[in-house]
Amino acid sequence: MPSICRAVALCTVAFLALGSAAVRAADPISLQDMGSFHIGGRTVEVTGQPIKEIKFAPNGVPAKVDPNGSYVVEQMYVQYFIPQNKRGAVPLLLWHGGGLTGVTYETTPDGREGWLTDFLRRGWAVYNSDAMERGRSGWPAISPPIWTGEPVMVTPANAFERFRIGAGEGSWNADPSQRKSPPNHQFPVESIMQFGKQFAPRWLSTDEPVLRAYLEEVDKVCPCVILFHSQGGQFGFKAAQARPDKVKALIAVEPAEVGDFDKVAALANIPVLMVYGDFIAENARWTKIRERGGAFAAKIREAGGSVDIIDLPKAGITGNSHMMMMDRNNLQISGLINDWLAKRGLYQ
Amino acid sequence: MPSICRAVALCTVAFLALGSAAVRAADPISLQDMGSFHIGGRTVEVTGQPIKEIKFAPNGVPAKVDPNGSYVVEQMYVQYFIPQNKRGAVPLLLWHGGGLTGVTYETTPDGREGWLTDFLRRGWAVYNSDAMERGRSGWPAISPPIWTGEPVMVTPANAFERFRIGAGEGSWNADPSQRKSPPNHQFPVESIMQFGKQFAPRWLSTDEPVLRAYLEEVDKVCPCVILFHSQGGQFGFKAAQARPDKVKALIAVEPAEVGDFDKVAALANIPVLMVYGDFIAENARWTKIRERGGAFAAKIREAGGSVDIIDLPKAGITGNSHMMMMDRNNLQISGLINDWLAKRGLYQ
Repeated sequence: MPSICRAVALCTVAFLALGSAAVRAADPISLQDMGSFHIGGRTVEVTGQPIKEIKFAPNGVPAKVDPNGSYVVEQMYVQYFIPQNKRGAVPLLLWHGGGLTGVTYETTPDGREGWLTDFLRRGWAVYNSDAMERGRSGWPAISPPIWTGEPVMVTPANAFERFRIGAGEGSWNADPSQRKSPPNHQFPVESIMQFGKQFAPRWLSTDEPVLRAYLEEVDKVCPCVILFHSQGGQFGFKAAQARPDKVKALIAVEPAEVGDFDKVAALANIPVLMVYGDFIAENARWTKIRERGGAFAAKIREAGGSVDIIDLPKAGITGNSHMMMMDRNNLQISGLINDWLAKRGLYQ
Repeated sequence: MPSICRAVALCTVAFLALGSAAVRAADPISLQDMGSFHIGGRTVEVTGQPIKEIKFAPNGVPAKVDPNGSYVVEQMYVQYFIPQNKRGAVPLLLWHGGGLTGVTYETTPDGREGWLTDFLRRGWAVYNSDAMERGRSGWPAISPPIWTGEPVMVTPANAFERFRIGAGEGSWNADPSQRKSPPNHQFPVESIMQFGKQFAPRWLSTDEPVLRAYLEEVDKVCPCVILFHSQGGQFGFKAAQARPDKVKALIAVEPAEVGDFDKVAALANIPVLMVYGDFIAENARWTKIRERGGAFAAKIREAGGSVDIIDLPKAGITGNSHMMMMDRNNLQISGLINDWLAKRGLYQ
C-alpha cells in the first residue's frame, strides 16, 4: 500500500476509485434488461375552454383541438438498467436535486461518466428518474394551472455561486477568466455553461405530488437503496419514513432538507449515510444546511438508528462542490458510497 | 414457409417479427458504451428583473436568486446506447413526434419493449433524443419569454381520435367501454391514459431552434440513418437536405410534414423509406397528409432519388395507428424497417 495512505478507510477509497475509473470504463456493460415507465399521476378535468384549430406544422393540415377534457398530470418518469451480474442486494434508486433531472447522474458537464453507469458497472440495478414536473415526467400546460406560482429556473451564475463551485457570493463573472473558484476545486468549471444545459424549471409548490410519485416508485420497485441529492433530501427521508420496510439504506448526498423530525423512529432500522463536500464552513447558508443535517442525524440516533456522516475534507478528500457526482473525483465518491453499502451487507 | 406467405417480402417480415419478439427479448444486451449529452443551445441575457429570495424547500434556508444574467436555452438532450456487436453500418438516430419525447421509442403504454431496445438488440448504435423544448432538453422559464405563443398539450382523447387509435372524430367517450376503435386495431387502447403520461407541452413557434439542435446532433454523430415520426417529418427531411453527405438513409414513419420541395435534389443519393399505417383512407386529414408525403416522394424520384413507400395494409399488415412503434405488432414493423435497411447495405 502506498505510504500516503494513513488510514485503512482512505486507502480503500483510493483503491476503489482507481479501479473504477481506469479499468472498468473500457469493459462492456452487460444488461439483463433496460427500459422505462411512467408511474403515478392523476386525472384532471378541464372545462369551459374554447376549441382551437391548430396547425401543428407551418404547412400542416389544420386539426381541431378541444382543450377541454381529461388530462393525466403529476406522473413521474423512471428509466432502469438491470445488470447481467448483479452484486447489489436490492435495486438502487437515484433521486436528483432541484432544478435538475435524472441527467444529473448520467454524465458530467465535461462529458465524463456519471454515477448511473458507474453503479451499473459495479453491479447495481439502477432506477434513475426525473422528479415529477421535470424532464421526461412532463408538466401540465393546461388552463387554469393546477399548481400555484411560476416555475423557477436559475442561471449558471447562480448555480456557480450557490453550489460552491465558485468561491461564494460575488465569485461569478461574465468573463470566465475572472471567475473565482477555490484553488483545489473539483468541479469542471470550464464546463459551467454546459452544466446550465441540464437545468429544468421547477415549481415551489409541488413537494406533495413529487413525494407522492416517489412513493409510487418505492411501492413498485423496492425493497431498495435510495440515493438522493439536495432537494431530494426531504423526499428520500420522507419516503423512507412512509415506507420503512421497503428501504434498506439511504444515501443522502448533501441533503438540502431532511425528513420529519417527529417521525425519526421510522428510520431506526434503516442505515443512513450522509455525504458532504468541501467549503461548507466558509458559507453561512451551507453551514446551516449542514447543521440541520447533523441535527436530524442526531435525532435518528436518539431513536436507535444508525447514521454515518462523511464530511469529505475530514476523510482527506478536498475540493468537492455540491454537485459531487459531477466533480472530477466523482468516481472516488461513488466508490466510497459503494464501500459503505458493502459494509452494510448490501453489496458483495 | 407457411402457405399464408404470398410474397417473399411478407414472409421475411413475418419471420423477422417472430424472431425478434419471441427469442431476443430474453437475451442480455451487451453494450460497448452508453451515456448522454446535451447539444446545441445558445446564451440569452435577462436584465431588469427584481432579485428574489427563494426558499427552495418548505423549511429550507432562504437563498437570494438573481433572475438576471446569462441562461443557456434551446439545447437538446441525446441519450445513446452502443452495442458490443454492431451490425448497423452507421448509428441510428430516433426522432420522435410532436407533444412527445424520446420515451416514444423506449416503451409502449402497456409496458412492452419499444423500438429503442429492439434496434439495439438487432445491433444498431441508437441515439434517442428529446426534441429541443421537451423532456430532458429543458425549456426556458425566463421572463420575458423567448418564444411566442403558449405551449400546447393535448388530451388522451385528442390523441385517441387524431392518431387513428379510435375510429375518428367522436370515437372517444369518457367511459372506456363506449370508445370506438376499429375491430382490428393494433394500439393497446386499454392503456390510452398511460400513453397520456408521455405527453409533453410543445410550442408552435419553435421549429427553427428544434431543427438547429437536430443539425448539431447530425454534425456530432453522423454519418447515420435517421428514423423520424410525425412532426419529426419536417426535421428529418430538412436535416438531410442541409447535410446530405452525412445521412445514409431516412426512415419517415407517418411524417406529418415533409422537407423543402425546392431542395429535393439534395436527397437524390439518400434512400428513403416511408411507412404509413391503416385507416388513412377513412380520415380526411390523414388522406391529405398521406397525399403530401406521396407528392414529396414523387418529387424526390423526379430528382433521381429513391423512395420506397410502404402502406402497411397493402403489405398485409392491418390495424396500425399513427403510433405504430407502440402498437401490438410494433416489432413486426421495426423488423420490416430493419429488413429494408439490410437491403440498402446498411445492416449485416
